[in-house]
Amino acid sequence: MKNILTLDIGGTNIRAAHVSLGEDGFKIVRKLKQATGSEPLEVIIHLIESLLSEGGKEIKTVGLSVAGIVDPQDCILLKSPNIAKLEGTNFGKLLEERYQLRCIVENDANAAAYGERVAGAGREFEDFVLFTLGTGIGAGVVMNGRLLSIPAEIGHISIDIDGPQCPCGNVGCFETYASASAIISRAISQIEDGAQSILKSIHNGNFYKMNAEDIYKAALEGDMLARTVLKDAGKAFGIGIASVVNIFGPQAIILTGGLIGAWNIYVEAAIREASRRAFKELISKVKILPSQLADDAGLTGIAYLASEAV
Amino acid sequence: MKNILTLDIGGTNIRAAHVSLGEDGFKIVRKLKQATGSEPLEVIIHLIESLLSEGGKEIKTVGLSVAGIVDPQDCILLKSPNIAKLEGTNFGKLLEERYQLRCIVENDANAAAYGERVAGAGREFEDFVLFTLGTGIGAGVVMNGRLLSIPAEIGHISIDIDGPQCPCGNVGCFETYASASAIISRAISQIEDGAQSILKSIHNGNFYKMNAEDIYKAALEGDMLARTVLKDAGKAFGIGIASVVNIFGPQAIILTGGLIGAWNIYVEAAIREASRRAFKELISKVKILPSQLADDAGLTGIAYLASEAV
Repeated sequence: MKNILTLDIGGTNIRAAHVSLGEDGFKIVRKLKQATGSEPLEVIIHLIESLLSEGGKEIKTVGLSVAGIVDPQDCILLKSPNIAKLEGTNFGKLLEERYQLRCIVENDANAAAYGERVAGAGREFEDFVLFTLGTGIGAGVVMNGRLLSIPAEIGHISIDIDGPQCPCGNVGCFETYASASAIISRAISQIEDGAQSILKSIHNGNFYKMNAEDIYKAALEGDMLARTVLKDAGKAFGIGIASVVNIFGPQAIILTGGLIGAWNIYVEAAIREASRRAFKELISKVKILPSQLADDAGLTGIAYLASEAV
Repeated sequence: MKNILTLDIGGTNIRAAHVSLGEDGFKIVRKLKQATGSEPLEVIIHLIESLLSEGGKEIKTVGLSVAGIVDPQDCILLKSPNIAKLEGTNFGKLLEERYQLRCIVENDANAAAYGERVAGAGREFEDFVLFTLGTGIGAGVVMNGRLLSIPAEIGHISIDIDGPQCPCGNVGCFETYASASAIISRAISQIEDGAQSILKSIHNGNFYKMNAEDIYKAALEGDMLARTVLKDAGKAFGIGIASVVNIFGPQAIILTGGLIGAWNIYVEAAIREASRRAFKELISKVKILPSQLADDAGLTGIAYLASEAV
């Protein structure tokens, strides 16, 4: 039986769990959640100490699933646009010196992909790519049943030479067209430009507060602006899927995150566009399906990765 | 000592070799080359029978390095725009039934990447991407010292949503901007449109016969059209490099093929563009360097892959 302390560190929330893995599989002993806030490192330390203090004495290893680019060798978070305050944090050193714990780190989409592989929608596929469709677009790649420990920053492939500047430094990144943030900004700017939409009166007229779900609901009510914005974003996502299919030739694409709620508009548009663009010999074999573990994929994946590393 | 029959099957030439691998390394026993022509399968059979008839009795395995998308499981060439006549060929069945030989197949850029890994510029890197810069743009990916057996059709990532149609089905594919063919067509169409260039009088005025080397030579003589065309193509190649760096986070990018002759214009422009676009944390660590094995990379790689598979 291995006891692992796992953390899934995102821009909005930080989730932590004491997990045990043994012959009877994966068990969450205790689970905590806190808003990331303005001092994420303090939140992380608080969560770790809470879990260690209550029955965590047999824990020797921490697994971190983090939104960003990581250095798995030294357990450092190199870059994280959504949790900028944590950039450069040497978790390996911190956890070793303060708690004598060994640190394993992975990008959150990579960890989620491995979670789906061991316990979710990826169990029946040796080769698949998982996309996380949220504020940004992340991805994780499983080949021959193993997680590829690569950055997999597929959201930052440029699909438009002269496209808009992305905060990452590149221009025309595919997530600036296809992510939830992209959908929301596009809807807002079209309403500002005078387009008609039921979204105009949402949140008591403060339509700047709209989220992706509001747009999807409006689309279901037949709102043309909402439908068009979702379809255009889905089309851009399809270009990204086509690239991934031509590069990795996966058996499946697994989707997770808020936008999969809009499956019959956004995802269907993406599938149509990908089918038109990717190599027929490759796309014809690809199954596109939703994740099974949803929010628990990251914690599950990093728990297994950590248990395999020790 | 293992004896392998290797073939490197491209759109222009088919190269074949009887190779032996043992404790003293890799040795080419005999090497043949023939134009691909209009009946490539006949050429392949002729080359195989020539090598088998002369001292090839100890050969039990054939390794095929082919320009196209392959099914490694059954040794089938699924798609090959440059050798369309071979599309759908079941080499596994053919070689087994006719010669009782086992067949191992890989995409040619993948095989070349593995060749560089075992005996060339990739020996010192665990993680790298090889690009073949020719008529098209191919790629092969080595991670953790092993070849990723994926299509790696990186030349067919779209970098322009509304770009020109590519024969592959996609639009705006990055090879339609960055390959030797792209450079030649752009130079020709600019001359047709009346642009001034010393290339106009090349091949006794039949500038339609120009090749990438002609353009590079003109660029070295200060021809502005040639310089601009090479720089623009290099810039597009840089966008492709940036995508590859953001996806794979390699230690090195290894370049092979005719266009690397134009290193100080084309490749330098690519490096500048990639440095601007890729994640700083990733691109800053990437070494970009030429291949060491050149034309022998594919044969070398497929020989090692075949010897490891048996």
